[in-house]
Amino acid sequence: MKDEKPEVLDVIGTAEDCDCKEGMFPDPGRRALLLGGAALAGTGLFAGRAGAEATQGASQHAVLDDPTSQPGPASGGGYGLRSQFETVSRWEFPLPQPGVSGSFTPLAGTHGTITPSGLHYEVHRGGVPTIDPARHKLLIHGKVKRAKVFTMADLYRFPSVTRTAFLECAGNGGMEYARPSMPHVQGTHGLTSNSEWTGVALSTLLREVGLEDGANWLLGEGSDAGMHTRSIPIDKAMDDAILAYAQNGEAIRPEQGYPLRLLLPGFEGNMSIKWLRRLDVTDKPSFTRPEVTTYADTLADGTTRYFTWEMEAKSVITFPSGTMKLPIPGTYEVTGLAWSGRGKITGVEVSADGGKTWARANLVAPVLSMAHTRFTFGWRWDGKPAILQSRATDETGYVQPTITALVDVRGVNSKDHNNGIQSWAIDAEGNVTNVHA
Amino acid sequence: MKDEKPEVLDVIGTAEDCDCKEGMFPDPGRRALLLGGAALAGTGLFAGRAGAEATQGASQHAVLDDPTSQPGPASGGGYGLRSQFETVSRWEFPLPQPGVSGSFTPLAGTHGTITPSGLHYEVHRGGVPTIDPARHKLLIHGKVKRAKVFTMADLYRFPSVTRTAFLECAGNGGMEYARPSMPHVQGTHGLTSNSEWTGVALSTLLREVGLEDGANWLLGEGSDAGMHTRSIPIDKAMDDAILAYAQNGEAIRPEQGYPLRLLLPGFEGNMSIKWLRRLDVTDKPSFTRPEVTTYADTLADGTTRYFTWEMEAKSVITFPSGTMKLPIPGTYEVTGLAWSGRGKITGVEVSADGGKTWARANLVAPVLSMAHTRFTFGWRWDGKPAILQSRATDETGYVQPTITALVDVRGVNSKDHNNGIQSWAIDAEGNVTNVHA
Repeated sequence: MKDEKPEVLDVIGTAEDCDCKEGMFPDPGRRALLLGGAALAGTGLFAGRAGAEATQGASQHAVLDDPTSQPGPASGGGYGLRSQFETVSRWEFPLPQPGVSGSFTPLAGTHGTITPSGLHYEVHRGGVPTIDPARHKLLIHGKVKRAKVFTMADLYRFPSVTRTAFLECAGNGGMEYARPSMPHVQGTHGLTSNSEWTGVALSTLLREVGLEDGANWLLGEGSDAGMHTRSIPIDKAMDDAILAYAQNGEAIRPEQGYPLRLLLPGFEGNMSIKWLRRLDVTDKPSFTRPEVTTYADTLADGTTRYFTWEMEAKSVITFPSGTMKLPIPGTYEVTGLAWSGRGKITGVEVSADGGKTWARANLVAPVLSMAHTRFTFGWRWDGKPAILQSRATDETGYVQPTITALVDVRGVNSKDHNNGIQSWAIDAEGNVTNVHA
Repeated sequence: MKDEKPEVLDVIGTAEDCDCKEGMFPDPGRRALLLGGAALAGTGLFAGRAGAEATQGASQHAVLDDPTSQPGPASGGGYGLRSQFETVSRWEFPLPQPGVSGSFTPLAGTHGTITPSGLHYEVHRGGVPTIDPARHKLLIHGKVKRAKVFTMADLYRFPSVTRTAFLECAGNGGMEYARPSMPHVQGTHGLTSNSEWTGVALSTLLREVGLEDGANWLLGEGSDAGMHTRSIPIDKAMDDAILAYAQNGEAIRPEQGYPLRLLLPGFEGNMSIKWLRRLDVTDKPSFTRPEVTTYADTLADGTTRYFTWEMEAKSVITFPSGTMKLPIPGTYEVTGLAWSGRGKITGVEVSADGGKTWARANLVAPVLSMAHTRFTFGWRWDGKPAILQSRATDETGYVQPTITALVDVRGVNSKDHNNGIQSWAIDAEGNVTNVHA
C-alpha cells in the first residue's frame, strides 16, 4: 500500500487539503452544530473518552502524529483491555453502613443494551469472597426427595439456558424520593445493569432432587461473609430462575457471584443471591433478616410491605443527563434505557416540557423481556429552558408513574423501589441538572 | 446472620452431614454421570476454569476454607476483571508473514452468544495503532456533493444505531481444507466473534455528504501501519453498514479499531476496516492490494474469485470438541454456534454418525440476523466410537456443505471461506479429535 500513502497523508493532513466540492460546512447552522459537538468532548458529556487517568490495567502507548508511520504493538494474545483513553469513573456506594461496599454503572457513558461485565453495578455486605470453583458446592435440601450436593462440574453437565436480563438494586434511586439528590445519571440510576446470562434452569435441578408436598418456598444462601439469605417463592423458582455460571460469554465475575449465582429475572437484585451455596426447600418463607429489615418497605402510615420483588417499569434518559452541557441550540439524539421486571417494554414516551406533552421514542430491536431496552428520540432544542423526561410502559399495560404519585402512595420512609419518572432540567445555557418536576 | 452460621457450616461441611432423605446419588448411573462430570474439570474440557496461570491483571486473593469466616475485599470501584481462576489460553495467529499478528477466540470456553470484548479475535497487518479519539478524523470525499471531515465528537452527534453482529475472518478454518490440522475448536473456528455494536449508520453520513451520480463504490482505509484498504459496494454501504464506535456497551477496544471502525454485517471480517480514517466514493472498485491478493480466492483451475464478501452459513460444535475427553458413557448436552452472513439461522441439525442421520438441535432465542446463534442438543453417548457434526441452514435456504463438497468445487488453493461441516471423532475412550468425515 506504500504507493497510496502520500495521497492519504495529504488529504488527512488538514481540512483545506481535501478535494472539497463545496465548503466543508456549507450550512452555518450545521457547522455550529458540528463544532458544538466537538466542544462537547471537553465538558464531561463524553466523560471518560479522553481523560488523563488511565484505564485499570491498560498498557500505555505513545500516540504517533501519523499512526501509519510505524507498526503498533502486535496482538498481546491475552485478555484484551480498554483503550488507555477510556478512563473509569465509578460512583461508589454512599451508604455509611459498616461492611457495605459497591459501585454504580456509569450509564451516561455506556452504549446499546449490554453492560460491560467490568462495569456491572455491585453491592456487597461482606466484601467479595474468593472462591475456587473446583471446591465450590451447592446443597439443595429440605422438603425434597433426594437432597444433593452439586459441584460446579456437575452443574456444567446439565442442559444450559441462556437469556439476557437486567439486574436492578431495590435501592436504585433511593436518594431521589424526597428531593433530587444525585448530580448525574450514574448516581440516580446506576444500580441497574444488563447481561447475557448462561446457566442451569433451577427447575431442572429441583426436578432432579424431587419436590415433596408442601415445597412452597426456598431459602437461598450465599457464601459471603454477610451470609446473605432470601426466601424465594417456588413458582418463581420453577418458572424462569437460573443458576448462572456465565455472564456475557464467560464465567461470571467475582463481584457477580463467581462461580455461581442465582438469577431471578425481573426481581430486585438482592434476590439473585451471589456465591450461592445452599437452597433449603421449605413450606413457609423464612423471614430472614435482610427481608424483614433492609429489603422491606415501610409506608407512610408505618405499615411495612414485605416481598416486594418485582421491579416495576422504569426508564431514564442517559443523554442528555445531569452534569452535561448542551453547547448550542440544535438537534440532538436523546437516548436512554427502559426496563420492566414484568416483561417487555412496549413503549417509551419522551417529554421536553416537564410532562405536559409526550411523543413516542424509537425502541432499538430486539426488545427482550425483563432486559434493558435502548430508546432514542430526535429532539430540537430551541435554546430555552426545558425539562426532559421519559416514561415507560410495559406489556402488562403498567405506565411508569411520576415520583410525586409514588410518594403520595408510599411516603418517603423507604428508600426502595423508586421507579418514578426522572426529570432533567436544561437551562438557557444548556446546563443539565437533576430536578423534580 | 450470625445465628444461622453454625447450621450452615454443618450442612456444607461434608456430604454426610446433610439431611438426606435418601442416598446422595440413589441412581448408580446418575451418580457415575455426576462424578464423571466432576472428573471432567481436570481434563481440559473446561480448560481455563481452574488453572494455575493468573488472568491478565486480576488481583490474587487467598482462598479461605470457609469464605464466610471473614469479609472479602470490598468493591474496587474501578473496571472489574475476571476471577483469578479464569485463565486465558489464546491460540495465536500461525501465519509466518512478517508484521502479521492476531489471536483467536477460545470458543470452547465461551457461553451464550456474546463474545467478551477481551476475547474477540483479532488479525493485524501492522500492529494496533494507538489513537487519541480527540485527534481522530474521518474524511469522506470523492464522488460526493460536500466532502467533509468528521471528528469523533461530530459522529457522536448523529442518530445512533445498535445491532448484534458476528465478525468472521475470511481465513477462519483455512488450515482445515486439505486435512484436519488444528487440534481444537479455537484453532479450527476461533476467528469468529459476536458483539453488540453501536455507531452511526453509514447511510446517514453518505446522505450528509450527498452522493453524486456514479457513486457506486467506496474505498475504505484504516489508520494502521498496514494501511488496510478495501472496496465496498455502495448498496451495502447504504443498506446496513455502520461506523461503529461502541462494542458490548462501551467504546470499541483498540484491537477492534478504536475509536472507529467500519462494520459490514455478514461480510468477511477484513471488510470491516478498523481505525477507519477515510472513505473515498468512487465509480469503480479500486482493486486494492489486499483484495486482489490476500482476500481473493484462487480456484483449482487457476481462475480467481474476487469480492467474495458474504460469509456463508456455518456452524460448529464447541462441546464436545477437539482435545476434550468424555469420561464415561452417558447423556451430554452437545452445544455450539451457528451463523450466516446472509441472515438468520433457521435450523441446525446434529449428527452423531458422521452425517448418515441428522436430528434437529434447539436454537437459543432470540435468533438474530447475521449474529452467532447458540444451539444445544441432548445426546446419549453409548461408549462406542462416534463422529459428531453440526449442519446449519439459513433463511435463504442455503445448507452448510461438507468440506468434501466444498473442495470438489473450489479446490485447495485458497485458504479462505471454508464453511464446511466440522467433524469431531470420539473414540471408545471418549477422546475427541478433529477429523474429516
